[in-house]
Parts: sequence; structure tokens; C-alpha cells
Amino acid sequence: MTKTAIFTGSFDPFTIGHQTVVERALLLFDKVIVGIGFNMNKKYLFSTEERVKNISQLFENQPKVFVKTYNCITVDFAKENGADYIIRSVRSAQDFEYEQNMANINKHLSGIETILFFAEQKFAHISSSMVRELIAFGKEVDDFLPKIN
Amino acid sequence: MTKTAIFTGSFDPFTIGHQTVVERALLLFDKVIVGIGFNMNKKYLFSTEERVKNISQLFENQPKVFVKTYNCITVDFAKENGADYIIRSVRSAQDFEYEQNMANINKHLSGIETILFFAEQKFAHISSSMVRELIAFGKEVDDFLPKIN
Amino acid sequence: MTKTAIFTGSFDPFTIGHQTVVERALLLFDKVIVGIGFNMNKKYLFSTEERVKNISQLFENQPKVFVKTYNCITVDFAKENGADYIIRSVRSAQDFEYEQNMANINKHLSGIETILFFAEQKFAHISSSMVRELIAFGKEVDDFLPKIN
Amino acid sequence: MTKTAIFTGSFDPFTIGHQTVVERALLLFDKVIVGIGFNMNKKYLFSTEERVKNISQLFENQPKVFVKTYNCITVDFAKENGADYIIRSVRSAQDFEYEQNMANINKHLSGIETILFFAEQKFAHISSSMVRELIAFGKEVDDFLPKIN
Amino acid sequence: MTKTAIFTGSFDPFTIGHQTVVERALLLFDKVIVGIGFNMNKKYLFSTEERVKNISQLFENQPKVFVKTYNCITVDFAKENGADYIIRSVRSAQDFEYEQNMANINKHLSGIETILFFAEQKFAHISSSMVRELIAFGKEVDDFLPKIN
Amino acid sequence: MTKTAIFTGSFDPFTIGHQTVVERALLLFDKVIVGIGFNMNKKYLFSTEERVKNISQLFENQPKVFVKTYNCITVDFAKENGADYIIRSVRSAQDFEYEQNMANINKHLSGIETILFFAEQKFAHISSSMVRELIAFGKEVDDFLPKIN
Repeated sequence: MTKTAIFTGSFDPFTIGHQTVVERALLLFDKVIVGIGFNMNKKYLFSTEERVKNISQLFENQPKVFVKTYNCITVDFAKENGADYIIRSVRSAQDFEYEQNMANINKHLSGIETILFFAEQKFAHISSSMVRELIAFGKEVDDFLPKIN
Repeated sequence: MTKTAIFTGSFDPFTIGHQTVVERALLLFDKVIVGIGFNMNKKYLFSTEERVKNISQLFENQPKVFVKTYNCITVDFAKENGADYIIRSVRSAQDFEYEQNMANINKHLSGIETILFFAEQKFAHISSSMVRELIAFGKEVDDFLPKIN
Repeated sequence: MTKTAIFTGSFDPFTIGHQTVVERALLLFDKVIVGIGFNMNKKYLFSTEERVKNISQLFENQPKVFVKTYNCITVDFAKENGADYIIRSVRSAQDFEYEQNMANINKHLSGIETILFFAEQKFAHISSSMVRELIAFGKEVDDFLPKIN
Repeated sequence: MTKTAIFTGSFDPFTIGHQTVVERALLLFDKVIVGIGFNMNKKYLFSTEERVKNISQLFENQPKVFVKTYNCITVDFAKENGADYIIRSVRSAQDFEYEQNMANINKHLSGIETILFFAEQKFAHISSSMVRELIAFGKEVDDFLPKIN
Repeated sequence: MTKTAIFTGSFDPFTIGHQTVVERALLLFDKVIVGIGFNMNKKYLFSTEERVKNISQLFENQPKVFVKTYNCITVDFAKENGADYIIRSVRSAQDFEYEQNMANINKHLSGIETILFFAEQKFAHISSSMVRELIAFGKEVDDFLPKIN
Repeated sequence: MTKTAIFTGSFDPFTIGHQTVVERALLLFDKVIVGIGFNMNKKYLFSTEERVKNISQLFENQPKVFVKTYNCITVDFAKENGADYIIRSVRSAQDFEYEQNMANINKHLSGIETILFFAEQKFAHISSSMVRELIAFGKEVDDFLPKIN
């Protein structure tokens, strides 16, 4: 049986921390779908197209990674894609409480299971919002983003 | 490639919460090894033999579950059993901080990955220590332990 | 002496979790005033009128429950209504820190006491913001709202 | 209907923080039973007799306060005393998680409700264990204990 | 060697809690620079000019305190001012997690050290946002702001 | 005026994380006293003599570092040594709550100030208890201890 997981977020932008989650998830799942949520009422720094392009390019040699956008609740995105698992990465106790709440809601709504990976310790300070803030002030952010060869 | 996970603890006793973790892990892993840690300096309510027997009986129809005891650090137990993953269950933010610390240590020592399952919401108040306390006061604990058919 | 408590929030909407808090508070207090805060600068999904109507209807057979709106600080609303207690419900450690801070402020400003009820474990994942999110995506939310007979 | 609450702990010793909880509880409940738990396997700094005597003396003019010892689980002590509520005081988020867990267990076992009071901000650093530590080093602890007139 | 620290925030307004941090920092550092961050996209209750004026006046007899505004990332503000330390004040575990994250980012970006002071216990409930809320409702806030002689 | 800080703990053993705290404190204070607490009722893995010797050797070229033992409450040790500051290192939100409580007690008892350094992110998983556990199982712990040249 194919084991499929979705890894969802706004990924604005997709950081080096997100990259390690996908890479680690690939060892456990047969298929990992990176789901880029979009919401017309929210403003993003990077367009949906850019984000799809960047993430797709990063994993272009990984046939088990799929990049999609979605504009529905997470469990519906999971069901449409035949996914049995939602994977999330946690960096702190505060992240954890948010994820626990979301996992309980998602289980209530659909029975779908959420599984947590730990953020790599050396990347635990890296978040998309921090990267956006640095970009806003014209700083270099290469350290925090995946290296595309 | 066989995906093997260890699920470790003292399981004194193994609760209904632990049972759901093993059952959910079975959907994701090819082999789940329940590792009962023992430490000569610690006192247990249930003997190692009882715990091995009870857990083995519970999963006797699950050929993918193995019950073992160990008296070494967790990552060595994982390596001896060819396990690539440590699975843990978290009930609260405080549990989370402990697990994050252990996961970082275990990754440092061996590169092995720890993955978190959420305790089922309806079982989130159940812990082995609570069950032992109830037993000490002569209370009924059937609600908190697996049903053996 | 009549013991009066206020239970305040934006209740946008009033969930099944809020309902149990009022019902449990009724066992302890002589009078429970549900205070719907409104703020002209905030957007609500349900109008103040709808919220007043829904909550009033829910408790129409409970002569000890009163539903009011207010647009002042919480302790002034309490004083205007002769309330001696603010009751709040907490779902997580993060909620708790927020409530502790508010309780300390309210005690400083007026001496009024805040008392915490625990969210019922089975409803601990339910929040108004989660319900609004589900509604925004066209999902069914009956499970999370009080049943009106 | 008489509203009865138990306020339980080992109270080794009963601090000025505990005192304010009882005093505040008296405004809300008709009867407050201070329950001193004892456990033969635990060592206490103050004997059970001393603790009963000190707390009784402190509230000797409060006919609504009763001081008792118990050696059973908390909900049984509540039932034996016709109490409908367990009251607890919380000082920090860490305290909160412990109390939430206990409240869920106690509700599961008996349906009994737990209600939280906040520790007074100015006393939030005071705990029995801190007082014992100071006593062990021969320090003055009058600041932390109730004044008996 | 001169030891210089920056103490940054939006200080909208500068509270009695902020004042004690500066006063305590003065005992440790040779120079304390209060840095008022401003961001054109954010709305403030007090204008930058008012905030600079109020804080400057408060410390006018303290030749070691300097008040400046900045519109760049914190570590750049530190470097421009020859500061070796960022000082921050924490009131709760939730504050702490935010500060730990920021400190790790700032160390990564520049090697600069962040040092935490505890909010004075009696002021731990006071925050700028709470003061702004009280002002919005026309309440007296003198208790929460520094006394200017 | 000489600025003196104490850095206290049982240091059983003194880890690479503790070392960085002392090194960073040396940049801020004129004198850093490493205070090794001992308690006759506690069992240590390393004898007091070993701990004094190891830490002294590590800083033998740092004339501003002093290594002492003490068997009293922390604020008395500070006063006896003319120290104005207690420095502590925090690794997590849970550590933080403990430290906040201790800092409030110590300020109450003596007015002495506690200042927090963040554990270096890359060492945040290292604790003395973890090192003792590894030693108990015969594992190599060189990675976690200071390098003595």
C-alpha cells in the first residue's frame, strides 16, 4: 500500500528547515505532497507561482515529491490527494500547542493522522516570517534558504 | 526496505494510550518493537516478566509487533534491532520539551530520527504513573488498560 | 448574598465549549452574565444581534443567565452588573498565560477575582476561530455549536 | 444547597499563598475543607499533627473552614465530605499543565469539577518546597507563612 | 573597555516595567541605548517624537542613557552604536520562547549576545499593549507609567 | 566598581555548555565565581574535589574566574563573595519558569539580581544529567565536556 503524506504551509518562502523535513519524510513515505495553501485575503511576499516553481525545482530529481497549491481546509486537500498523513515540523513548545490543537481538529473532522518531525536543532531558529523580515530590510538570506544546484 | 521503529518506555503498566500508539505506528512501519527499559536501581510495580507477557499477549495476532527488554541507552537498543526510528507519544507541552531534548541527544549520538505521535485526545490524561497511583489506593483501573480478548 | 459572575468573550460564534462553561458556572453562581464584547474596529462573522439572539435562545429556560453586550473594559462591565467574579475557560498552557496576565491586570484595576474552569477534555480542540475557518471554507460545523431544541 | 469545596495538598507547610486561596474560596463556597494528604512512604518536615494544628488555629474564627487529613485518592476524599468542587491554585504554566491533567483524571473518575484560583501575583514565588529549603538552611521564613494573631 | 547595551522595542508607551530594566541595566553597562524601532506600516498610539521626548526626559539626569530611533534590523542598530549586548526583559514562558528565537537569529546574523532581565514580579502584568487598551477606553494609566519629577 | 557574578550549580559534571556561559560572562563581569553547591543528602557522580579540580584547571589561565564550593542558600553565597549578580543559563521554556521562580525568591530574600544567558543553540540539548546517564551506560561523553589543553 502506498503511504502518502502531505506537508502543508504557506512556505513564503520555503526554508532550509522545510527542506530537511521533506527529505526526512521521503525516507518514511512513498509519496510526499508539498501543499502550498493560498488565501485570497492574505498578502504573500512571494507569488504562488514563484513558490511552486522554487519548490518544484528543488525536488526535480525526487520523483516521490509533488508540489501542489490548495485553497480548502487541510483535511480536504489530504483526501483529494489520497494522503493518510499530515506531517508537521515543530520548533518549540508554543508551536507544539498549536499543532496539537490542529491535529485534534483534523482528526475530529476526518480521522486523518498528524505526525510531528522535530526541526533540526541547528535550524530551529529559522522561520519563513524571520526570512521575510530580513528581506524587508534588505539583508542577505541565503543561509536560510535551500541551495539549488 | 523494511521500516522499523522502536517504541520505548518502562510501560509500568502499558496503558490504553500506549496501545493506540502501537496500533497507529503499525500502519506506518513494517515492524514495531516495543522496548521495555529496565534499570536495576528503579522499582517497578509490575515485574519485567509481567510486562513482557501482557504486552506480548495483547499483540499476539500482530506479527509485526515485537516485545523486548533492554538495559542500555535507547539509540543502542535501536541499532541492535536495526531500527531507523524512535517513536514517542506526547500529551502536553511539557512532554514535548522533554521529547525535543531527548530527540536532539539521540540524533547527536547516532543520527537516528525521532517521530512524534499525538496522544489521542480522549486518552490524553492517562499515564502509567496515574494508573500506579490508583492501584496503590485500591481503585479500579480497567478503563485505562488495554482490553485483552 | 447573590453571587454573580460574568463570562465574557466575543463568542463569534458561541461554541459547545462555551455552553458547558455557562452550564457549569450556573451550579456555582446565582447569576451568570454572558458578556459579548464588541469593538467597532474589529470585524465579526456573526453580527452582535445574531450572537445576542442565539445565546439568549439557548438559555431561554435558564432564568439565572443574562446576555448582554458591552464596549468597555471587562472590569467596568463587571462593576456595572454587580459581578464579583470573572469566569474564564482555559484549553492549554498558552491560554493559561494569557489569562493569568489578564487576571492580574483586572485584579490590579478593580480587585475583582478571576476564576478558571477547564475546557471539557473532549471539547478542548474547539474554538470560535476554528469554527469561523471551517465556515469560511463551507464546511459543516454543527458538531461544534450548541444544539438548540 | 450547600456548596462545598475541598482544597487539598500536603501543606508542608501551609504558606501565606495557601491562606489567601482559602480566604478567597470562602467568599464563593459555603464550606471549605482543607484536606491534608498523607502518605506513609513520604517524609514530611512538619508532622501531620502540627499541620492540622497550625491550619486549624489559623481559621479558628472561620466556622466555614474544616481541616481534615486523608489517605485516599482526592475524589474519594471529596465524596466522603460531600464536596462538589476541588479548588486548586496555580502559579505558572507548568503548574497549569499538571492541574489540567489531574482535573481531567478526577472528572473521569467521579465527574467532580476542579476550579482554579490564580496565586496572588505578589505571592506567586512562594511554595512549600521553597520554604522547606530555607528552613533547612536555617533561614527566617516568617514572610512566607500566615501570621497567627 | 566600554560596555554598551541596546534595549529595543516600540515602547508605545514606555512603561514603568521598561524603566526598571533600564535602571537595572545601568548598574551593569557603561552605556544603555534605548532604541525605539519604527516601521512605516505600523500604527502607533504615541508618535515617535513623543516617545523620544518622554523617554529622554525620564533619563535626562542619567548621562549613560541615550535614546535613539531606528528603522533597520536590531543587530544593525547594535553595530552602528558599537553595542555588544542586546538586553531584553521577559515576563512569561511565552515571552521567553519568542526571545530565545530572536536571540538565536541575532547571534547567527552577527554574533551579538542577548541577555535577559526578569520583569520585576510586581510589574509582570504590565505591558504597552495593555496600557494602550486602557487608554482606548478612557481609563487612567498613571500606575503603569514612569513618574516624571 | 568591580562587578562580580556567581554562576552556581552542582556541575556534576561541568559541561561544554557551562563553559560557554563562564566565557561569555567574563566579557561582562570583572569576576566570575563558579559556585559548586553541595548537599550531604545528595549523591554525586563526581566528588566535590574532582569537580573543583576540573573546573579550576579549565580556567587556570583566567585570573578573573574563581571556583568555590558552598553549602548554604545561593544568596548567602553571593553575599559572602561580594557578588551583585547571579547568572544562569536557560535551555527551554521549562527551565525558564524554574529560573523565574528562583530569581523572584532570591530578589525577595536579598535584592540580588539574576541575569539569564541563553544556552548556545548547538549545545541546548546538553545537560549534566544527560552526561551522567551516558556515563552510567559506558558511553563516550567527550563531545559534551570541555576540552582541557
